[in-house]
Amino acid sequence: MIEFSDVRSEDGVTRRSFSIDVAGETVPAVLWAPDGAEGPRPLVLMGHGGSQHKKTPGIRARAAQYAQRLGYATLAVDAPGHGDRISREEAEANMREVGARVTGQVASPWTPERLALMAERTRQAVLEWKAALDAVQTLDFIGDAGPVGYWGVSMGTAIGVPFVAAEPRIGCAVLGLAGLRPGAREMEAAANAITCPVEFVFQWEDAVASREHGLALFNALGSREKTLHANPGGHMEIPNFEGASWERFFKRHLSDGARAEALAAA
Amino acid sequence: MIEFSDVRSEDGVTRRSFSIDVAGETVPAVLWAPDGAEGPRPLVLMGHGGSQHKKTPGIRARAAQYAQRLGYATLAVDAPGHGDRISREEAEANMREVGARVTGQVASPWTPERLALMAERTRQAVLEWKAALDAVQTLDFIGDAGPVGYWGVSMGTAIGVPFVAAEPRIGCAVLGLAGLRPGAREMEAAANAITCPVEFVFQWEDAVASREHGLALFNALGSREKTLHANPGGHMEIPNFEGASWERFFKRHLSDGARAEALAAA
Repeated sequence: MIEFSDVRSEDGVTRRSFSIDVAGETVPAVLWAPDGAEGPRPLVLMGHGGSQHKKTPGIRARAAQYAQRLGYATLAVDAPGHGDRISREEAEANMREVGARVTGQVASPWTPERLALMAERTRQAVLEWKAALDAVQTLDFIGDAGPVGYWGVSMGTAIGVPFVAAEPRIGCAVLGLAGLRPGAREMEAAANAITCPVEFVFQWEDAVASREHGLALFNALGSREKTLHANPGGHMEIPNFEGASWERFFKRHLSDGARAEALAAA
Repeated sequence: MIEFSDVRSEDGVTRRSFSIDVAGETVPAVLWAPDGAEGPRPLVLMGHGGSQHKKTPGIRARAAQYAQRLGYATLAVDAPGHGDRISREEAEANMREVGARVTGQVASPWTPERLALMAERTRQAVLEWKAALDAVQTLDFIGDAGPVGYWGVSMGTAIGVPFVAAEPRIGCAVLGLAGLRPGAREMEAAANAITCPVEFVFQWEDAVASREHGLALFNALGSREKTLHANPGGHMEIPNFEGASWERFFKRHLSDGARAEALAAA
């Protein structure tokens, strides 16, 4: 039973804030849906990037558009070590550190300590996503039958790959801005285990993930339908037309596709 | 002055057949436009693949859709050694030969003879495209001010790269299913010289062009805006959603973009 701590409406979209308790952690979450939404509808989970948070501008803008144009609900949570789970000072320090890394101003060595911390956070984040999805599927305006998509690039892919691999409720995913490093066996096995359609976006001059590693992650995806969109530019320079492409991707798989499947099954 | 040898209308689209004389060759051409079209409009040139012809099903379908949904005109010509420029028997033999090659049933050695023939045909094809574009731009329902796009994959890219590089009237191009072989200096120089937005579609298991060569051609394109769409599967297995993406690409650059530019200039 979800208790909403804050409910507000803007431009036809209602945003509900809540939190869930998972394995000793309190996870702040936010859910967008059309005003007055009733009955089941497609749901998109959006995983933010490193140093960002659940209401980062891109997620907020897409959540509103998906509600307004497609009638979808969107769920976002603060990842471990992010958003309302840390202090403002910590968040600002993270933002500076990640900002310098993604723009290539500082090298980003994959030290054993950093890899271990990321692996631990990723395992926790997968548990949290499952619990958050369980929770919102009890709501009558979402339901547990509807199709669910996942969107997350960069850290949203580092977490998204094992999550989507482990979660059969996810029917399609937008991933990208991340690579498969040689020897990253868990990531590789998770990518292999993904079977849903994937749109994988990659930036050709990404300071965080090399082309070679990005292509390796795309190639490792087990999905029969997977499409790579590669563009020139750095980690923060995904062209706007990719945002439009993500919306069509979700529409194709969560609206059109779901409807076609229902018709075929009828 | 174009003389149309055949004019017919179907589903709101008028198809006009004609031919032009270029450097001793008679080039069969076909032009689609909305019924009753008046005044200038965006134009897309579509270059067919090897063993295909100007009215190959994919081109015909897209030409009709672009006329119906976007109001565009589409021009296609038979490439040298193709379509109405050869006998039915020759066309059928080509189709068998190319069919075996693109499905990987036979190896396709780039012999010096084959490379020399292709280079000669490509040079001729570039001249023919320019002459065909000159001709249709004299028509009042196309005009010489409007934006022009190019679409062509496989052989349509082998010809399209030098054509788009040499033709400043082309404002955007869909290319793909082709690669840059090491030592193909002319192709590389032409790719470098292209500056318009390009959507480059590539099949990950293409028996004609390796991933490495495909990426090399994409990387060689001089365009600031270029986007690679890579999908699993062979040469003939481009997913349908790429067709929808091409239409949006042309709409963005020939309708929306052109309108935005006109507004900005006003």
